[in-house]
Amino acid sequence: MSQLTYGIAVFPSKKIQDIANSYRMRYDPQYSKIPPHITLKESFTADQQTIDKLTEDLSKIAKETEPFDIEIKKVSSFSPITHTVYLKVEPNDTLSKLNEQMNAEGFPGEQAFSFVPHITISQDLSEDEHSDVYGTLKISSFDLKDTIDRFQLLYQLDDGSWTVYETYKLGE
Amino acid sequence: MSQLTYGIAVFPSKKIQDIANSYRMRYDPQYSKIPPHITLKESFTADQQTIDKLTEDLSKIAKETEPFDIEIKKVSSFSPITHTVYLKVEPNDTLSKLNEQMNAEGFPGEQAFSFVPHITISQDLSEDEHSDVYGTLKISSFDLKDTIDRFQLLYQLDDGSWTVYETYKLGE
Repeated sequence: MSQLTYGIAVFPSKKIQDIANSYRMRYDPQYSKIPPHITLKESFTADQQTIDKLTEDLSKIAKETEPFDIEIKKVSSFSPITHTVYLKVEPNDTLSKLNEQMNAEGFPGEQAFSFVPHITISQDLSEDEHSDVYGTLKISSFDLKDTIDRFQLLYQLDDGSWTVYETYKLGE
Repeated sequence: MSQLTYGIAVFPSKKIQDIANSYRMRYDPQYSKIPPHITLKESFTADQQTIDKLTEDLSKIAKETEPFDIEIKKVSSFSPITHTVYLKVEPNDTLSKLNEQMNAEGFPGEQAFSFVPHITISQDLSEDEHSDVYGTLKISSFDLKDTIDRFQLLYQLDDGSWTVYETYKLGE
């Protein structure tokens, strides 16, 4: 059975996406592949049968989760592990719980790193470029708030871009 | 109340999207702004209150529509109206009815042209470029079939790219 690559993400409000894109268009070669997002579950491969079961599980998770608020105050970096600069989403119990539920026993895929909620704004730059970008951005402070009321299951096309397969509304 | 720009579209199967992208990456400057799609309702602006009402109406339309099959056999062009080349979706009653329902009295937005279901693979080229591309592609024949079981409501970001707001599954 043919397998596709899937991922689960939250798209924040248009305002936050527009701010993230103002950096991404300059500093992120993956900019055009997917809108700005908070990854809830890292990419994994699955066949249609696995996805049919997963969509049921995700509906249940969404139904049991109420919409929640997030806050962004600053930029951070995964350096030296990767040269990824991101809008740091302040620690959030609901995001962590969603991530945990989506990586529980029986779910497809594996999580390589511990969960750090973030919106990538720069990646795949050289060490020097990363230092420049992060040096400039880490002194910025933000006061962004958003209410998250849905998450999305996406699959990847051959060119690396992502298409939304399904939307899950929280509390419904 | 602030307004966003919305649109309603169907994303066909990954296979058809990959084929469309193999042309789009060469012939469509809008390539990276949205995955390959069949537009059901042209872009329109609306405030959140209008969208709240619309999402209810769309849920109802989706529930009353069963999944349906589409077929693609050839490429066509909107020339001389626009230099848009597209994968022609064979006439389809369900697609036409969905388009009609989404443009009925009381729905936001207006439809500028009569509905021709299509997946754009080339646009915004010069007249000469368009003639070259269309001349090459119009002799191709395709035998693509797909079952459509959902449509999506999207909104546009400041950079012109589109983010999915909600997925509506047919028959549910």
